[in-house]
Amino acid sequence: MATTVVAGAAALRAGLSGPAGCVTEQPGFPDAGLPAMSDLVFGGHDIACTPLPKRAEQLVEAGVLPHGLPTAVHDDLASADAEIRPAPLPGPAMSQSDAVEAIRADITAFRERHGLARVVVVNVSSTEPVVTAHPAHSSARALRAALDAGEDVLPSSSLYALAAITAGCPHVDFTPSAGMRIPALREMAEEAGLPFAGNDGKTGETLLKATLGPMFAARGLRVRAWSGTNLLGGGDGETLADPAAMASKTASKQRVLTETLGHPVEGEVHIDYVPSLGDWKTAWDHVTFEGFLGVRMNLQFTWAGCDSALAAPLVLDLARLTARAHERGISGPLGELAFFFKDPVFKDPAGGGDHAVMSQYETLRAFATRLGAGL
Amino acid sequence: MATTVVAGAAALRAGLSGPAGCVTEQPGFPDAGLPAMSDLVFGGHDIACTPLPKRAEQLVEAGVLPHGLPTAVHDDLASADAEIRPAPLPGPAMSQSDAVEAIRADITAFRERHGLARVVVVNVSSTEPVVTAHPAHSSARALRAALDAGEDVLPSSSLYALAAITAGCPHVDFTPSAGMRIPALREMAEEAGLPFAGNDGKTGETLLKATLGPMFAARGLRVRAWSGTNLLGGGDGETLADPAAMASKTASKQRVLTETLGHPVEGEVHIDYVPSLGDWKTAWDHVTFEGFLGVRMNLQFTWAGCDSALAAPLVLDLARLTARAHERGISGPLGELAFFFKDPVFKDPAGGGDHAVMSQYETLRAFATRLGAGL
Amino acid sequence: MATTVVAGAAALRAGLSGPAGCVTEQPGFPDAGLPAMSDLVFGGHDIACTPLPKRAEQLVEAGVLPHGLPTAVHDDLASADAEIRPAPLPGPAMSQSDAVEAIRADITAFRERHGLARVVVVNVSSTEPVVTAHPAHSSARALRAALDAGEDVLPSSSLYALAAITAGCPHVDFTPSAGMRIPALREMAEEAGLPFAGNDGKTGETLLKATLGPMFAARGLRVRAWSGTNLLGGGDGETLADPAAMASKTASKQRVLTETLGHPVEGEVHIDYVPSLGDWKTAWDHVTFEGFLGVRMNLQFTWAGCDSALAAPLVLDLARLTARAHERGISGPLGELAFFFKDPVFKDPAGGGDHAVMSQYETLRAFATRLGAGL
Amino acid sequence: MATTVVAGAAALRAGLSGPAGCVTEQPGFPDAGLPAMSDLVFGGHDIACTPLPKRAEQLVEAGVLPHGLPTAVHDDLASADAEIRPAPLPGPAMSQSDAVEAIRADITAFRERHGLARVVVVNVSSTEPVVTAHPAHSSARALRAALDAGEDVLPSSSLYALAAITAGCPHVDFTPSAGMRIPALREMAEEAGLPFAGNDGKTGETLLKATLGPMFAARGLRVRAWSGTNLLGGGDGETLADPAAMASKTASKQRVLTETLGHPVEGEVHIDYVPSLGDWKTAWDHVTFEGFLGVRMNLQFTWAGCDSALAAPLVLDLARLTARAHERGISGPLGELAFFFKDPVFKDPAGGGDHAVMSQYETLRAFATRLGAGL
Repeated sequence: MATTVVAGAAALRAGLSGPAGCVTEQPGFPDAGLPAMSDLVFGGHDIACTPLPKRAEQLVEAGVLPHGLPTAVHDDLASADAEIRPAPLPGPAMSQSDAVEAIRADITAFRERHGLARVVVVNVSSTEPVVTAHPAHSSARALRAALDAGEDVLPSSSLYALAAITAGCPHVDFTPSAGMRIPALREMAEEAGLPFAGNDGKTGETLLKATLGPMFAARGLRVRAWSGTNLLGGGDGETLADPAAMASKTASKQRVLTETLGHPVEGEVHIDYVPSLGDWKTAWDHVTFEGFLGVRMNLQFTWAGCDSALAAPLVLDLARLTARAHERGISGPLGELAFFFKDPVFKDPAGGGDHAVMSQYETLRAFATRLGAGL
Repeated sequence: MATTVVAGAAALRAGLSGPAGCVTEQPGFPDAGLPAMSDLVFGGHDIACTPLPKRAEQLVEAGVLPHGLPTAVHDDLASADAEIRPAPLPGPAMSQSDAVEAIRADITAFRERHGLARVVVVNVSSTEPVVTAHPAHSSARALRAALDAGEDVLPSSSLYALAAITAGCPHVDFTPSAGMRIPALREMAEEAGLPFAGNDGKTGETLLKATLGPMFAARGLRVRAWSGTNLLGGGDGETLADPAAMASKTASKQRVLTETLGHPVEGEVHIDYVPSLGDWKTAWDHVTFEGFLGVRMNLQFTWAGCDSALAAPLVLDLARLTARAHERGISGPLGELAFFFKDPVFKDPAGGGDHAVMSQYETLRAFATRLGAGL
Repeated sequence: MATTVVAGAAALRAGLSGPAGCVTEQPGFPDAGLPAMSDLVFGGHDIACTPLPKRAEQLVEAGVLPHGLPTAVHDDLASADAEIRPAPLPGPAMSQSDAVEAIRADITAFRERHGLARVVVVNVSSTEPVVTAHPAHSSARALRAALDAGEDVLPSSSLYALAAITAGCPHVDFTPSAGMRIPALREMAEEAGLPFAGNDGKTGETLLKATLGPMFAARGLRVRAWSGTNLLGGGDGETLADPAAMASKTASKQRVLTETLGHPVEGEVHIDYVPSLGDWKTAWDHVTFEGFLGVRMNLQFTWAGCDSALAAPLVLDLARLTARAHERGISGPLGELAFFFKDPVFKDPAGGGDHAVMSQYETLRAFATRLGAGL
Repeated sequence: MATTVVAGAAALRAGLSGPAGCVTEQPGFPDAGLPAMSDLVFGGHDIACTPLPKRAEQLVEAGVLPHGLPTAVHDDLASADAEIRPAPLPGPAMSQSDAVEAIRADITAFRERHGLARVVVVNVSSTEPVVTAHPAHSSARALRAALDAGEDVLPSSSLYALAAITAGCPHVDFTPSAGMRIPALREMAEEAGLPFAGNDGKTGETLLKATLGPMFAARGLRVRAWSGTNLLGGGDGETLADPAAMASKTASKQRVLTETLGHPVEGEVHIDYVPSLGDWKTAWDHVTFEGFLGVRMNLQFTWAGCDSALAAPLVLDLARLTARAHERGISGPLGELAFFFKDPVFKDPAGGGDHAVMSQYETLRAFATRLGAGL
């Protein structure tokens, strides 16, 4: 996905592609004072080492990127590639606090090297297994103590969230991983006056659940069962074939539904790894509902999309919106960005936000106006 | 559908059935001061002569009404049946103005016989062929002159709209027919201080178009083609097998889409008459859209529902809301009820209303509050 | 399902229903010399105790049986109900060999009481967990020794298969359970000159896999992935929610595909228990395949059916065909009945039969001719 | 499609692509003595003038041909392109008999120039409007007389069929057009001892109707309604947007169903032109059927395929099989090739052939054996 983000930003910049799929390129956002596409500079940490230009070629083969694009935007890919650092791997040789420090150093060096006003740290890595709570997660003080004592208490996604905080950077979690959701990190981010957003980009089945669910509720049509099967190839599909990882994903997928409808429903969510689908995914949902006088009816839908083409523009949207929020001095969880997420973070950690896509969109539009017009 | 309306209202009244599918029975409406289900009295005009209790038994066979319901609510069906009058048929023997007068007389007699505060006239007849404009449609004055001269200038649906006006009754058009949309009639209704609503209840494919369309727009996903096929049995399916009638229906179905997306899209809408489906209908839609970097993706859905179970509760909702609006002295087109219609009438005859279902729902909720709290 | 079998046979007998769904009532079978529907007498063992007439009423509510049928065929339901015995439950109080003897005694008493030419034992109980091999399964001799020694070595489905053998009855296994597939039992059935058939009736997704798979193969279209999700309510859905039981079911579902296409394919099969679906089931399959020059295409289908309406007539077909085979002195596994099964038994225990539905149908038609014309 | 045929044959020849989608490249055909892919030489008549190499590039953009293929097989495309002649257009300046003579001359010159054993004329042009019968169609004699008299009595597809006859060439009609189906032409082809095949390649919806229909029949499941909508971009979609042309197409689509099921069914077939789909097509079918005790169930499928990738390999199959039939002295309508067609021609002009795909496949396999082993 990172490759599509960089190539896509370059394509937009160069006018090689239209704004389709990019929310902040649509009407309603030009006056929000967002950083221009052309002002964005890309870098990152990675565990793989395939150069971006090569990956871009692979994405052309996969039908994700248009032919000729990798060549047309080669320089952008190459300069982003030059800013990718191997991900520090904590272990016997490196404590978690040393890893956080190494990541922080990379981020600040990147910011200085390019004279950037700010850096937004976005987690686009694969889904992490569900994290088990640890006493050190409960407060900034407890966490600092544990890390200083050389303990390993954080999941990998949270090391980057902590590094973002220590580097004074806003943070966006596009995955269902823990990231900034460790209470201690939320506390530290708020102390540091940093905005953050997440979790888990809403790009397919859940987007439709959050669109159709409110319609059923508004019409008083009682959903009895909502069953879904997601067929995924590509890296994420493989990760999610691991039940541990899938658990956190399906949980956030079903939460949306229960909270939207106001009552639990029958049905399961499956995520199947189908390698030959490559970067494409298909979601099939089957919904049974009761209407007037208890008559049973049903709705089925099939969503066939390209995962990175759906996700990449949202990453650009989130980076621009979060950067602007930081510029305007807005801090803490950006619940106003719930439109983008399956499992949005809100000021009230208990959540209680609205999952209805169109309400989330109204909230986002209002936020954009606020970002433009001032607080 | 009329049978389901009467039987359903009785079932709700008797607590034999839950509120599913009935919008005004959901949270947000109890304080709107709507007439109670138990205060509704039913009557009407019909061209068929099967008694309601017999039709109710047929609907049980068709799986629309639960077993035992016709027996349980037999008295309600019988008393409504006693209030059904043969529809006056203008022709050589009867001028249109005589027909209007006959309808008006039936309505006022019905109102007086039951000592009703008001009568809401609802058109639930089959779809009418598209009406060709006539000079007499342009103003109340021209229309009165033509009718006084014994001319036949109105489609049948508009005769009932005119009778409603002369009887001082609000009017709801649940069909795509002309009804109150003749400019002369709008003018007369507004003169008479009467509220009216319409047109064409939104119960399936169009409900989903108006739900999904705004999501595509909000995400900046560019819809290229939206193709739909509707399989209908029952009376409406048969009527719509007539291309003339279908024309008015498909027109309103596609308008929603163009107005929601802000641009025309490829694709056709078909309405097929499939007798063996009886009262059931299936809508299949296939949507192709362009995402980031022009990648093509698609969404398909299949909506399988029972036509009268979807429509009947909305007729009850509309009767209650329109009656309350009349009671509160609100007159003219009730654009606030757009949530219920494919082709809503607005104060501004040019339309220009929002077709997004969830915005329409917010408008409806606000209207309910206004109906309750006062103007 | 047993209730639907009895009620359906009675309805056919009484001319209350047509032959739809019943293979042996279609052209090609009248000359096979099958026992007439009206010659069938029903009895059985059950662990539940709801009387058949009451169950029939429940099936009317569920939309499986037509209204009035339970009343119309009440006598048939009552007499079958009078022939249902509590299933002997081996345990501390009763050895497996005692249980087999008790079942045998019930069967022979039933046969004598009604002066029947023969009894066909059909297993229509819920799916059993996969059975682990046991040395006593390897030969008739080993099995007899183990049972005589009072050991518990057989799954419950096989106790009935053994009882059928000792009672001299043909046996049909409509489930994926072990039943007659224990080598020792096959050996004993062949010694006893008894025909038997199975396993696991083909009524939905697998029927379509076995219909569409051969088409892909004949056209040289290479299937890459075949993913399926089955939504089931009712008793079987509940049993299959148990992963152990599901394992044996999904195994036979996928075997059909691999054997039909001649190569393994990607994709999983899910069976979800959705209680509100009741006796109805929906299967969704998504197939991706490669055509000329490697172009990727796909086929999706959704099969929405009523489980017992699909299965019950096949039970009648199998009982009639197996009874006739027994009458004609045909013994051993009836591979000619593969048309009815997901996992057919063949003379060659290694299987190696053709899974293509239409070839299986030709084989069945030829078998019917043979049953009629003589060996 | 012609471009895909030539490029695909070259790719197979060069081992750049596998045999997927090409029936005669699958097991069962190697011993039929078919001409080798590498022995095929391509030429033709066209009304368009885009060179094949350019069209191949367009097909790469459309996702039909793999990248790099046009370059890899450029020579083959160029030499086929050099053999494409402008289609003679009868009109004021040219009588139909002159056009036939011009076409014949091109064909024989092509055959001699390349020293070919034989030429198979294949019609892959767009669908023609339904032809109205003309007295001159009734016999060879009447037709010759009319043409000699300079009358225009044949549709364009039949001019090529006649030219094929006069040039002594077998003929294949891959379209629903009249082609060889004019009685006079059948008579002349049989007089000339030439084999011919057609009509209308079976590549999507109809392939599935002919696969699923027999399953419903074998199971005694009574199909009540079969509704279908076909979304097509590309040239054929545009032609079929013309109701006249569509008529002949939908007619052959529905005939298959009625003949397969043995009774007429409710439901319509739509063919919609959706330009943005390009060379891709989607067919959606909705089937309702009755099972045991009249229970209503349904099946839906969606077939999403690439039109020319589905059709092109069949054109190669048909050319090879028909050439071999000609070599073996087989003449007249090749009903054994029904597997490939929606509306097969049979010896008995009244038709009466089997539409079941798998039976047609068995017939084809037997024919292949006969072609190899001798008559």
